[in-house]
Amino acid sequence: MATMTQRRNFGSDNVTPMAPEILNALIEANREPVHSYGDDAYTQALSQRLCEVFETEVTVYPVTTGTAANALALSVLAPPFGAIYCHETAHIVTDECGAPEFYTAGAKLIGLTGAQGKIRAADVGSHVEFAHSMGVHHVVPSALSLTQATEWGTVYTVGELAAITAVAHEHGLPVHMDGARFANAVAKLGVSPADCTWRAGIDVLSFGATKNGAMAAEAVVFFNKAHAREFESRRKRAGHLWSKMRFLSAQLLAYLKDDLWLHNARHANSLAATLSSGLAQLPGARLAAPTDANEVFIELPLQLIERLEKDGFEFYHWPAPEGFTGTVIRLVTSFDMPAIAVTEFIQAAQQHAQQLA
Amino acid sequence: MATMTQRRNFGSDNVTPMAPEILNALIEANREPVHSYGDDAYTQALSQRLCEVFETEVTVYPVTTGTAANALALSVLAPPFGAIYCHETAHIVTDECGAPEFYTAGAKLIGLTGAQGKIRAADVGSHVEFAHSMGVHHVVPSALSLTQATEWGTVYTVGELAAITAVAHEHGLPVHMDGARFANAVAKLGVSPADCTWRAGIDVLSFGATKNGAMAAEAVVFFNKAHAREFESRRKRAGHLWSKMRFLSAQLLAYLKDDLWLHNARHANSLAATLSSGLAQLPGARLAAPTDANEVFIELPLQLIERLEKDGFEFYHWPAPEGFTGTVIRLVTSFDMPAIAVTEFIQAAQQHAQQLA
Amino acid sequence: MATMTQRRNFGSDNVTPMAPEILNALIEANREPVHSYGDDAYTQALSQRLCEVFETEVTVYPVTTGTAANALALSVLAPPFGAIYCHETAHIVTDECGAPEFYTAGAKLIGLTGAQGKIRAADVGSHVEFAHSMGVHHVVPSALSLTQATEWGTVYTVGELAAITAVAHEHGLPVHMDGARFANAVAKLGVSPADCTWRAGIDVLSFGATKNGAMAAEAVVFFNKAHAREFESRRKRAGHLWSKMRFLSAQLLAYLKDDLWLHNARHANSLAATLSSGLAQLPGARLAAPTDANEVFIELPLQLIERLEKDGFEFYHWPAPEGFTGTVIRLVTSFDMPAIAVTEFIQAAQQHAQQLA
Amino acid sequence: MATMTQRRNFGSDNVTPMAPEILNALIEANREPVHSYGDDAYTQALSQRLCEVFETEVTVYPVTTGTAANALALSVLAPPFGAIYCHETAHIVTDECGAPEFYTAGAKLIGLTGAQGKIRAADVGSHVEFAHSMGVHHVVPSALSLTQATEWGTVYTVGELAAITAVAHEHGLPVHMDGARFANAVAKLGVSPADCTWRAGIDVLSFGATKNGAMAAEAVVFFNKAHAREFESRRKRAGHLWSKMRFLSAQLLAYLKDDLWLHNARHANSLAATLSSGLAQLPGARLAAPTDANEVFIELPLQLIERLEKDGFEFYHWPAPEGFTGTVIRLVTSFDMPAIAVTEFIQAAQQHAQQLA
Repeated sequence: MATMTQRRNFGSDNVTPMAPEILNALIEANREPVHSYGDDAYTQALSQRLCEVFETEVTVYPVTTGTAANALALSVLAPPFGAIYCHETAHIVTDECGAPEFYTAGAKLIGLTGAQGKIRAADVGSHVEFAHSMGVHHVVPSALSLTQATEWGTVYTVGELAAITAVAHEHGLPVHMDGARFANAVAKLGVSPADCTWRAGIDVLSFGATKNGAMAAEAVVFFNKAHAREFESRRKRAGHLWSKMRFLSAQLLAYLKDDLWLHNARHANSLAATLSSGLAQLPGARLAAPTDANEVFIELPLQLIERLEKDGFEFYHWPAPEGFTGTVIRLVTSFDMPAIAVTEFIQAAQQHAQQLA
Repeated sequence: MATMTQRRNFGSDNVTPMAPEILNALIEANREPVHSYGDDAYTQALSQRLCEVFETEVTVYPVTTGTAANALALSVLAPPFGAIYCHETAHIVTDECGAPEFYTAGAKLIGLTGAQGKIRAADVGSHVEFAHSMGVHHVVPSALSLTQATEWGTVYTVGELAAITAVAHEHGLPVHMDGARFANAVAKLGVSPADCTWRAGIDVLSFGATKNGAMAAEAVVFFNKAHAREFESRRKRAGHLWSKMRFLSAQLLAYLKDDLWLHNARHANSLAATLSSGLAQLPGARLAAPTDANEVFIELPLQLIERLEKDGFEFYHWPAPEGFTGTVIRLVTSFDMPAIAVTEFIQAAQQHAQQLA
Repeated sequence: MATMTQRRNFGSDNVTPMAPEILNALIEANREPVHSYGDDAYTQALSQRLCEVFETEVTVYPVTTGTAANALALSVLAPPFGAIYCHETAHIVTDECGAPEFYTAGAKLIGLTGAQGKIRAADVGSHVEFAHSMGVHHVVPSALSLTQATEWGTVYTVGELAAITAVAHEHGLPVHMDGARFANAVAKLGVSPADCTWRAGIDVLSFGATKNGAMAAEAVVFFNKAHAREFESRRKRAGHLWSKMRFLSAQLLAYLKDDLWLHNARHANSLAATLSSGLAQLPGARLAAPTDANEVFIELPLQLIERLEKDGFEFYHWPAPEGFTGTVIRLVTSFDMPAIAVTEFIQAAQQHAQQLA
Repeated sequence: MATMTQRRNFGSDNVTPMAPEILNALIEANREPVHSYGDDAYTQALSQRLCEVFETEVTVYPVTTGTAANALALSVLAPPFGAIYCHETAHIVTDECGAPEFYTAGAKLIGLTGAQGKIRAADVGSHVEFAHSMGVHHVVPSALSLTQATEWGTVYTVGELAAITAVAHEHGLPVHMDGARFANAVAKLGVSPADCTWRAGIDVLSFGATKNGAMAAEAVVFFNKAHAREFESRRKRAGHLWSKMRFLSAQLLAYLKDDLWLHNARHANSLAATLSSGLAQLPGARLAAPTDANEVFIELPLQLIERLEKDGFEFYHWPAPEGFTGTVIRLVTSFDMPAIAVTEFIQAAQQHAQQLA
């Protein structure tokens, strides 16, 4: 077990505590007994609130983790003999210990390449056509999953989303969006949640809250009722139906109240932008991807990286993308990070860079 | 969505809020960032605490729900082609929408009969022998699961546990205990947690807290390290590894602190005992099982039941066990129920009984 | 490995060789290369032939074993979170090592009671209603599976089938028939294959041939196209798509040609009827079920049974049904059994009975 | 359904009939009843024969298809949360509709790159180390699967095999060999079956026979008993345990008798070598891989290809490997192909080439 030096953690946005508004919501929700398994006023209000946020009728299922949200969503889109297309660096491929395979009973994730974490519309089409050409020997094209913001901290534009989902729908594939950092993407895009989801062709969204202020809460949001039918049985069967559901719903209600979710995301995005532009000016620095959300991916001289680590700053080394030969690191900002943390990081990097010059 | 009349709910112990001590623990745990996925002081302290409570080296995995705890535990005990023996009324058979089948990839639950929710040691032996006589055509005997307290509110004595687990072990079956109401059972037995688990032959315990004061927290406790190996991958893969794990661990730590768990359970048991003896004296009343824990199963005249329901009391009708022909209801008491609630229920029942006489 | 005394085997109809007509079909089909994976004239002819036999448009998939046929059929009818209702003694419950659970990714078989291997229409209804009353906690009623002839050698009448399937359909459950001994049932009923399948409400049939003359061939026959859609992917994925498919189809074509299937079944049924009536007259004998097909279930004095076994006759002891306290045995006749084998068995039994008198 | 012009099929070796020796074995095995499910003299003899062939104690399980053999073998090597490393073009990845995922309950196949269908020892090591660096978030490295001969018709040398299996074993991974064309590989290598399997580090082999003369028969051969334990339950559960097992075993016995398997493979290999060298001399021709076994992968001018297709020759276009920009085709020879077929193909190609010049 490692101890954590506060203000020096750029390792992850999941080391954060709850936002105070969300903790207060738990306290409020603890006043009296309510019916269990979602038959409560909090869960009902959450559904209504998300219908408003997305300006359409949605079906909403709160769950505990992003992995559960993604895997449950995919399990109603893809049969066991299905293919799910996604970016080769998607969290569902690399970081969920096979959760989609577990929940779908063995569907196959087919990872597409693409710079800066984004898949290309044309690749979706060619992969599906190849699959069909193989007949019964190939798993059946069944779903597409996009990550927004991507694993490289970039954000698909509304136009990019529409182009990709058009190809997917043309081939009969419903589209899932892994929105573990959906708030950061919406904050970046500056459009309505509706515009960058169902109006852009998304069928189901893993609406993340945990990284951006909740304790442990994500909502699976279906824009298409046909896909939601089985979800309740699957959630129960997976042990993801809370008996005291109100405590999941209350987190999400507080997260949505007064746009806390966007407020928090804007703060984290803003710190990341500052960090990105500050570091990019250092000698030997080169951004591996544009800083659209709350993650900075940057190549820095190895000696500089090592000095920052010796200072106690925490962050991850990242597999270098094509075209990069040096060491790439990932720096994550969060909703509760003080601005001074970023200032200090940049200053420390600048000082080390000068000494190394 | 139904609204709930406080003090008249005997439907379930999962309508309760958090115990104040547990809410306070969440508030405490929210003060600063800590490392994620269990690499934190809360989770480490929880392991130590449970080693003390059980007076032996245990391996501990916090999860969110009882269904997850049971299904994950069973998934490391039984292969996909395995048989899991349990009581035919066990929660894993009737109330988890096939979670054990999902997590084990298709193992078969074989339900044994037995009065008042208890299985008999001899039946375990005869079922396993039958299975072996069938050769490759039969699923392979792989595990035994007991529920303590049982689905009929009864509590296995230490001697009963030892007799059943001896037969299971003789046939090579590890033994799981579904302890959704484990605290109530320990409170009833008046023995140490060690005496009624591993010293009585239990290999892995689903240590429940949600029904008895937590928000959403159960611990899977392995007394046998050999069985714990795969658990971490399976938990992650199921979406049951919280990134902000401290909030699970903190609930459980508070639950164990100063024996809150036993204190809460004794309160609920005591109310149930009062309720049980009060109702048993009514004309036409007949207990369907002894009231060992916090659940009363009692046959009452249907007219009496209907009047209580009209009063706004909530409880479930229950499938009548062998030998009962009338209507059986289940009444559940809980850690936060005021004594007056039980008094009022008994009084109401007495008044209706008099009027119906 | 045991050796087998010919003419004294009443243990199983799967010890038989191929019928000569079916062996000849393999020889014929071996003359030249043909396209693989079912794109061949044999497989096409088989589909046409089965459409004729069943007097309707059917979709046909040949597979190798009865277990594969049953499990694949059920996997397209029931989701992982589904309940499949069947008799508690059904082969899919007791003899397939969890194949339905494997193929469905964890659906639950719910075994209904019923005398002589037959389920009752009313029980289907009450089980489904109970399931729905449990809400999300219970697996979802999804399919019904009947065995024809049953595991007790009895044959559902057309009226019995219609009554059961009506209740199933009323509750939205498609109906599967395990027809491992379908030919024996049709031979007994004396009605058309159509009358005792789709016209009686059957949606998909495991049409067995292996026990009645084939080497290893069963056809899954869908009377309802909607259910057949996924089958091809599931069969391939299970390793049950033969590359040299013609050798499966050729067996089935020969089996159907000139009503070989019914001819063979009538022979076996006739021997069983003779055996049954001969043995039933012995002192202490009592049939455990009427002998409708090619299996005799009969209670006999234990000493008599032991003498027959000493003579080298092979057969199985069977779990005694309710109401029987002595030893019940199962005797199976087959398509290639000479009549003398039955005569000799009866004579031997009579002689032993006289000596024991 | 397509009709097939004999002598012009280079599409696949699975369009072939049975070798006459194997058909005769079925006729021989049909003479009398024998016990079912493998308790017969044929199956026992097969085990002994394979122990002789491999010069060691092996455990043998006959199954029907290569897909079943591979998926069942892998299911005992890798848990549901496991990673199976293999070449990205492996049949288990591309052509089995997700069978390994089905049988393992969701393990992940991780495809390694490598020229001409061969994986590199170093890549195995680096992938496993990366997996371990990811902790619980990554599926657990569990097995390695090699294809021999490879999907590009090449054959790993004994030295190559030993180098790869050494790395795998160093990391605790058992090694599976997909030997759908194992006979062709052994014929090419000219070493003993033992030398190119267990002595080179192979733990379990899918020993193919269907493509090389059998009707539908493969044997899963375990060189390591520890891995075989669960196989029987898994095979039964998958519907791959034939009741009339003798008909599987008899095919394999005939395949091994008098080295029929090697005789057949040598014939096919020899035709492929002739075809390969004949075509390689054409203008614009370029082999995409050395012709080690019975498959030729060659780039030819598109116009030439189209003329051959117009002649009625059957073969597949193949995805061009790195470094090839034209059209690559695959030509497969088989055990029963007359030499004249190859001569005619080469002559036709030469004539078209002249006309196109």
